[in-house]
Amino acid sequence: MADDKPKDSGRPAHPRDASDVKRWDRETDVAVVGAGGAGVCAALEARAAGAEVLVLERAWQGGGTSMQASGQLYMGGGTPLQKACGFDDDPEEMLKYLVASCGPGADAEKIRVYCERSVEHYHWITERGVPFKPTFLPVEVGTDPYTDDGLSYTGSELAWPFCEIAKPAPRGHTAQQEGENAGQLMMDLLLRQLEPAGVEVVTEALCEPLVVDRDGRVVGVMATVGGEEKAIRARRGVVLTAGGYIHNKAMVERYAPVTRRARFRLGCDGDDGRGIRMGMGAGGDAIRMEAACIVVPFSRNRQFVKGVLVNAHGQRFCNEDLYQSLLGEIGMWRQDGKIYLVLDDVLYEQPQLPTEILAVAESFADLEREAAVFPEGSLVHTLETYNAGAARGEDPLYRKEARWLQPLATPPYVVLDLTVEKYPFWSAFTLGGLHTRPSGEVLDADGSVVPGLYAAGRNASGLPAHGYNSGLSLADATFSGRLAGVAAAGNTG
Amino acid sequence: MADDKPKDSGRPAHPRDASDVKRWDRETDVAVVGAGGAGVCAALEARAAGAEVLVLERAWQGGGTSMQASGQLYMGGGTPLQKACGFDDDPEEMLKYLVASCGPGADAEKIRVYCERSVEHYHWITERGVPFKPTFLPVEVGTDPYTDDGLSYTGSELAWPFCEIAKPAPRGHTAQQEGENAGQLMMDLLLRQLEPAGVEVVTEALCEPLVVDRDGRVVGVMATVGGEEKAIRARRGVVLTAGGYIHNKAMVERYAPVTRRARFRLGCDGDDGRGIRMGMGAGGDAIRMEAACIVVPFSRNRQFVKGVLVNAHGQRFCNEDLYQSLLGEIGMWRQDGKIYLVLDDVLYEQPQLPTEILAVAESFADLEREAAVFPEGSLVHTLETYNAGAARGEDPLYRKEARWLQPLATPPYVVLDLTVEKYPFWSAFTLGGLHTRPSGEVLDADGSVVPGLYAAGRNASGLPAHGYNSGLSLADATFSGRLAGVAAAGNTG
Repeated sequence: MADDKPKDSGRPAHPRDASDVKRWDRETDVAVVGAGGAGVCAALEARAAGAEVLVLERAWQGGGTSMQASGQLYMGGGTPLQKACGFDDDPEEMLKYLVASCGPGADAEKIRVYCERSVEHYHWITERGVPFKPTFLPVEVGTDPYTDDGLSYTGSELAWPFCEIAKPAPRGHTAQQEGENAGQLMMDLLLRQLEPAGVEVVTEALCEPLVVDRDGRVVGVMATVGGEEKAIRARRGVVLTAGGYIHNKAMVERYAPVTRRARFRLGCDGDDGRGIRMGMGAGGDAIRMEAACIVVPFSRNRQFVKGVLVNAHGQRFCNEDLYQSLLGEIGMWRQDGKIYLVLDDVLYEQPQLPTEILAVAESFADLEREAAVFPEGSLVHTLETYNAGAARGEDPLYRKEARWLQPLATPPYVVLDLTVEKYPFWSAFTLGGLHTRPSGEVLDADGSVVPGLYAAGRNASGLPAHGYNSGLSLADATFSGRLAGVAAAGNTG
Repeated sequence: MADDKPKDSGRPAHPRDASDVKRWDRETDVAVVGAGGAGVCAALEARAAGAEVLVLERAWQGGGTSMQASGQLYMGGGTPLQKACGFDDDPEEMLKYLVASCGPGADAEKIRVYCERSVEHYHWITERGVPFKPTFLPVEVGTDPYTDDGLSYTGSELAWPFCEIAKPAPRGHTAQQEGENAGQLMMDLLLRQLEPAGVEVVTEALCEPLVVDRDGRVVGVMATVGGEEKAIRARRGVVLTAGGYIHNKAMVERYAPVTRRARFRLGCDGDDGRGIRMGMGAGGDAIRMEAACIVVPFSRNRQFVKGVLVNAHGQRFCNEDLYQSLLGEIGMWRQDGKIYLVLDDVLYEQPQLPTEILAVAESFADLEREAAVFPEGSLVHTLETYNAGAARGEDPLYRKEARWLQPLATPPYVVLDLTVEKYPFWSAFTLGGLHTRPSGEVLDADGSVVPGLYAAGRNASGLPAHGYNSGLSLADATFSGRLAGVAAAGNTG
């Protein structure tokens, strides 16, 4: 399908007038656009609530971007997995952490609802067969697990200043998998529930636009299937679950131009903004469209957390133990994408990061000179200060956790270039989308419900705004998908 | 009127259906909503183009926020005033500077049109009697002139990195005034042109909402005058020129929550977002709504530019000679509003800034200790490094101009608290608004023109986005107002 797709517009997709639909090719209660994490959960819950459900998926199989995800689900507040691994958690602490880390503009009400229901959501997920191994992956090993451990830290809970804002707990729940992405396992398990539940899925069905009646109510959706345009009537509502817009160049340039600088755009081909554009065309308001998750994954080798990150002025600008998505946010927005990593010979290991080595030298002074990007004396001072603190087990400047503190004391020293234009692993995906109630109803700019229209996952603006933790996208997908499915099924007029 | 005004909604104002208007109380070709800088210029140009024009102003007199402005108009590219003061300028250099300083998301096409026509605009303004004294206010005196000098720097043109991006020229054009704000003089001169030109102004006329026909065309506006609702028909179009939204709490919280931290909200009472909401209600798209000008005016005493600004980590974070609005942007967004100014006894003068003195001490070490906010050794190093550079006439870290460089060498030293919660002079106003063509037509989310609807000044998203220079608001008001007036007058179907 990817090759056939039309050049993506950045504009709202004007809805089809219901009076222009000569006949409905198909009728259902709830039509779900997209069979990724959000769509599958919406379909299952709508069906469980008694609705007839039809899922329309543009690709030849479901899964979407959730299928590509490393498979962490951000859940907490005291899940059985957290308890089994010996961690206390509380919805209030989770709330405090998420509000602080999801940044200005995050939807506090959505966060509150999610924190309160997170344990229930855990049960829903596990009841659908998704296994979580009751073992904890220590932070020394990694934040992005490729083990089969169930629980890990996937945010900056332990890092300053968050450790002072909320009691830390690991909340990344990773499905137990064998050699594959956990996202693939989870989606496979969820997709397999559809048929037994009585949900029909039509694949290779490219939806656009919505069908709207004269009162502005969404009553269906047009879908191109096998080269033919079909009119699908949805008696109770249409749920948009077609992903973000990182692959729509026009939308990215208009709304989130900064993300263009990151080399990797995370998301499947379907993340072309179509669902958002369809919703906007039917009157839905798109909000937080400037928000994006920006990741600098430099610390998969955990040794590197013991290195020193500096900006173009040779200054440290954050604690190196912040989570990679927060580092990306700070590195891009506050440091203009210009960041560097300094290591000593103890920390420098093979395989190395695939980026330019700016300098290798036996002394800090020579290192600074050879790098030729830092003001005179600035890097030397930064490293000397860092070392003096680290020798005492302290980081007075940014309070990196003691476990990551050790002086850079073994030459040669190295400066790695992590600037966004040089280091290829900066990655980004969009977070903005349709304005929805926590329960999934799409709102117009006036705050009124667009009747018959629901959105979930990255088709909606979800939990994070200007701050991200891994697992929030699958959390948004599965949880907001569930709620939107319930709401659509209940829309019986 | 201020006391009577309804509690402001943050929502689009739904338009009145033309079929619900029983009779028109008044007809005109062009109705202009708001008699601030944009409205007056729109009215004059629409009238000059042959249209009958009616201006509706909510207050008892015109002037709006332009009337309160210090009266700088950002113009350049080689104006007669620039030439008279001995400065070369060029539209290309002006364009390079504005694109760089107005930040990501600035409308490059609007900037280009403005730079190309800026000299013409200067003539238009001066032909309307606005006087500019052909004298230059040196940067050593101030950036915010209270003299009657005509020309001054009102941005960061001379400061790094902009001095390397574009050839600097002063572009702040200030009307020559006697003891009053230049904005008051300019608006007084412009308002006095209305009657002789044949433009009628109705004051104490609160407009809302627009009137739209069944094809979505804006055909008039409702106005409450003397307690009665009047229907005003506008045969050619309605021009929205009713200011920004800094005084609409609901809109600020939704779109630009960061501005809530600044103590002063710049703008007259009328900056309540009504015009933007009316335009949105009629289908107009509001863009760059997160953008705001944030100002930290610490350098009116120019001695202070020779001081050292540090963040909460005791680090310098920019060159102190950046213009106050860029400092505000950086201070708020990149330093979380936590900034401090360090002076020595030579620079510390009466009257002092009205803020807390965090520390006074005879040595840097004692100063740092007494301030009790900086990590150990950080402030000492920053000041020692700064002094070493300044003694050589250099600022290797941020390249502050040599004229502002002198070591802090005369104790006692002082740390002033300029954090946004403590220092009362942080101020803000919004920059987002309706999406318009450079010529003033309002666009919907689809990029299509909303027929019959025009916007200018802060009712539109104008030249700046994430970066501001003084004089850009009056530039946007007067220039975009003119273009919108011409476009509306020409809309003869």
